[in-house]
Amino acid sequence: MLSLDALRAAQARLDGQVRHTPLLFSDSFSHRVGAPVYLKAENLQRTGSFKPRGAINKLAQLTPEEAAGGVIAASAGNHAQGVALAAAMRGISATVVMPEAASLAKYEATLGYGATVIRHGTSYDEASVHAQQLAHKEGRTFIHAFDDEAVIAGQGTIGLELLSDLPDVELVVVPLGGGGLLAGIALAVKALRPAARVVGVQAATAPAAYRSYHGSRRVTVAPRTSVADGIAVGRPGKLTLGVLRKCVDDVVVADEEAISHTVVLLLERSKLLVEGAGAVGLAALLAGEIRLPAGPVAVILSGGNLDVALLGRLVEHGLAGAGRYLLYRATLPDKPGQLAALLAHIGRLNANIIEVEHYRAGLHLPVGSVNIQLLIEVQNPEHGLAVRDTLTQLGYHELLLP
Amino acid sequence: MLSLDALRAAQARLDGQVRHTPLLFSDSFSHRVGAPVYLKAENLQRTGSFKPRGAINKLAQLTPEEAAGGVIAASAGNHAQGVALAAAMRGISATVVMPEAASLAKYEATLGYGATVIRHGTSYDEASVHAQQLAHKEGRTFIHAFDDEAVIAGQGTIGLELLSDLPDVELVVVPLGGGGLLAGIALAVKALRPAARVVGVQAATAPAAYRSYHGSRRVTVAPRTSVADGIAVGRPGKLTLGVLRKCVDDVVVADEEAISHTVVLLLERSKLLVEGAGAVGLAALLAGEIRLPAGPVAVILSGGNLDVALLGRLVEHGLAGAGRYLLYRATLPDKPGQLAALLAHIGRLNANIIEVEHYRAGLHLPVGSVNIQLLIEVQNPEHGLAVRDTLTQLGYHELLLP
Repeated sequence: MLSLDALRAAQARLDGQVRHTPLLFSDSFSHRVGAPVYLKAENLQRTGSFKPRGAINKLAQLTPEEAAGGVIAASAGNHAQGVALAAAMRGISATVVMPEAASLAKYEATLGYGATVIRHGTSYDEASVHAQQLAHKEGRTFIHAFDDEAVIAGQGTIGLELLSDLPDVELVVVPLGGGGLLAGIALAVKALRPAARVVGVQAATAPAAYRSYHGSRRVTVAPRTSVADGIAVGRPGKLTLGVLRKCVDDVVVADEEAISHTVVLLLERSKLLVEGAGAVGLAALLAGEIRLPAGPVAVILSGGNLDVALLGRLVEHGLAGAGRYLLYRATLPDKPGQLAALLAHIGRLNANIIEVEHYRAGLHLPVGSVNIQLLIEVQNPEHGLAVRDTLTQLGYHELLLP
Repeated sequence: MLSLDALRAAQARLDGQVRHTPLLFSDSFSHRVGAPVYLKAENLQRTGSFKPRGAINKLAQLTPEEAAGGVIAASAGNHAQGVALAAAMRGISATVVMPEAASLAKYEATLGYGATVIRHGTSYDEASVHAQQLAHKEGRTFIHAFDDEAVIAGQGTIGLELLSDLPDVELVVVPLGGGGLLAGIALAVKALRPAARVVGVQAATAPAAYRSYHGSRRVTVAPRTSVADGIAVGRPGKLTLGVLRKCVDDVVVADEEAISHTVVLLLERSKLLVEGAGAVGLAALLAGEIRLPAGPVAVILSGGNLDVALLGRLVEHGLAGAGRYLLYRATLPDKPGQLAALLAHIGRLNANIIEVEHYRAGLHLPVGSVNIQLLIEVQNPEHGLAVRDTLTQLGYHELLLP
């Protein structure tokens, strides 16, 4: 039975094994949201996500026979690392089945903790079926990523830490995939501070738990590609959905653009690398999807395992979306010094040139002219408009795309 | 006089104004370095760097007349934000002179704290001369970025926090530009735990303090362009150099590649955005430039104000330098399905295609052939070699560049 005692027992088992993660007050997000916003930085947890909490609590309760037989899990990433670390700490053999598309960084990190990694299937669900077959064949204990009381109790220790650091919290916003994290935290909050609201946030591209929570039965929804791949789960757990219905005040969704933008904001403003799945809570809060209390709001940043190779693209996309890039095209006379003069004007407007393309051989270009295309970094959309207007006043003819 | 009492008085003034930043144990860096490594995350400080500590302590000690007259500072970024925040908190008028090349993000952030920002000069030194002229003309108090007892005492509060969180620290590694941060921390450490060594790290591109410390006099060295622009200072302070000579055990330098690589590692491993200037200490430690104790090592991550628009490029450069990208060129028969077959082979090798370029019209290309160029993400340099070798064994002919 999931009770406060189970969470407290988990906390005792985790003592010294995982990090009591920092709770960081954010000037910037408080200002944007209009309430005091605190970030619970589980991206700074060991392995880069909250997952070791549940895995360590689960593995600590295996029988000696189960421990000797080893464990197996299916995961696209964070649960894989959590189980691999927990197994390594106890000297238990671990196998992890990852879908083939799982990122290299997560694959390598899981190997680094000493687990055997098998790449199989095109989705989490296929990997999971394969892992359960292997569990049966090899006599390993299957460690579910969320639908397990010991796993839920382990994740719930985040709620205990939060309430000890911020006892007067009024709203707790939690990322939601299968529901293990949200169920654990909601149990802690409702046991210790029932007046505080708990809201789960799912990606709009994978809304199975959202629809199940708001409907009358547990539904399956095939997840679409998302920057929040860590919570792209096709169906919530049976156990977790039961807890959500009892202890969670609302479930909302965040869309892709909002999530990408929030990942970039967290880097820029809070200096934290948070993966898409870890940023959905803040994304929904910033988008105004969640009713605000007057008092403190805690947002769980559940993980930071964003592939660095993808980060560059996300940053570019985020900056473009935030109006920080201006694409400017113009026709110039093909005479020496013309491009230099234009760039000098832009420099005086405090805008920064990122890329210059220069086409002398245009199809419809008058002889003696040249087309240029500039990618310009500006401070904000208003600054971009001001740059455009000033250049027009200076006599430049912008080529607008059809 | 700079004493432990001055640092403690600063700590009392800063109470509730700045954040006691987290000290994060790093599994990954401890493993790489071979000693327990703790990261003091001043990038999570308000304004994204340690600078408000010194600025608040300084502004708290202005006379009522000085406060009424306003303050002025010169800075390319972090000191600007520190002074702007400190002034806003006390309701003091602040002007900041930034060199013209200062990043848009830092410019915008400083404006955001309500300071007046003037862009002037091509270097910090030119901005500084202009700021001192304005100080004289407008009757403002000039707030030096490092060569000031109150500023040094404010930065020293980091040392007090560190010693209270990690009393048995044996080595403290600190980024070094003008020397304010290093002087303050060294004073704290030598007063409270003289057995611990304190080492400063400067960027090899701006080694003025390094040369001054190891030589007999204070020298000026024109800084070169660096990813660690936040510590590109042409000359250490008079006061700070005096403290360095007395309290610091060694000063070393870190090179550009090591700094860039460390910024990427901190993102990947620790989920922290740290600017180049903030990462020099860890870079030198990872490069083996600093003699290791058996016991705990603390590394100060002094700031996180890395322009996000530049981050993408740094990440790409870092990944390439770490052997995570493979550029593969080959000639294929110009028949349907050839490229698909090659990509399928690469997919089976668990390598990830980032970019495909496909040239049908090559200058020296036999008719009926096509050149392709692939940018492939691999796990590490060994994996890159294995991909190359396997493709050769499969009959592909790699085009090696001269």
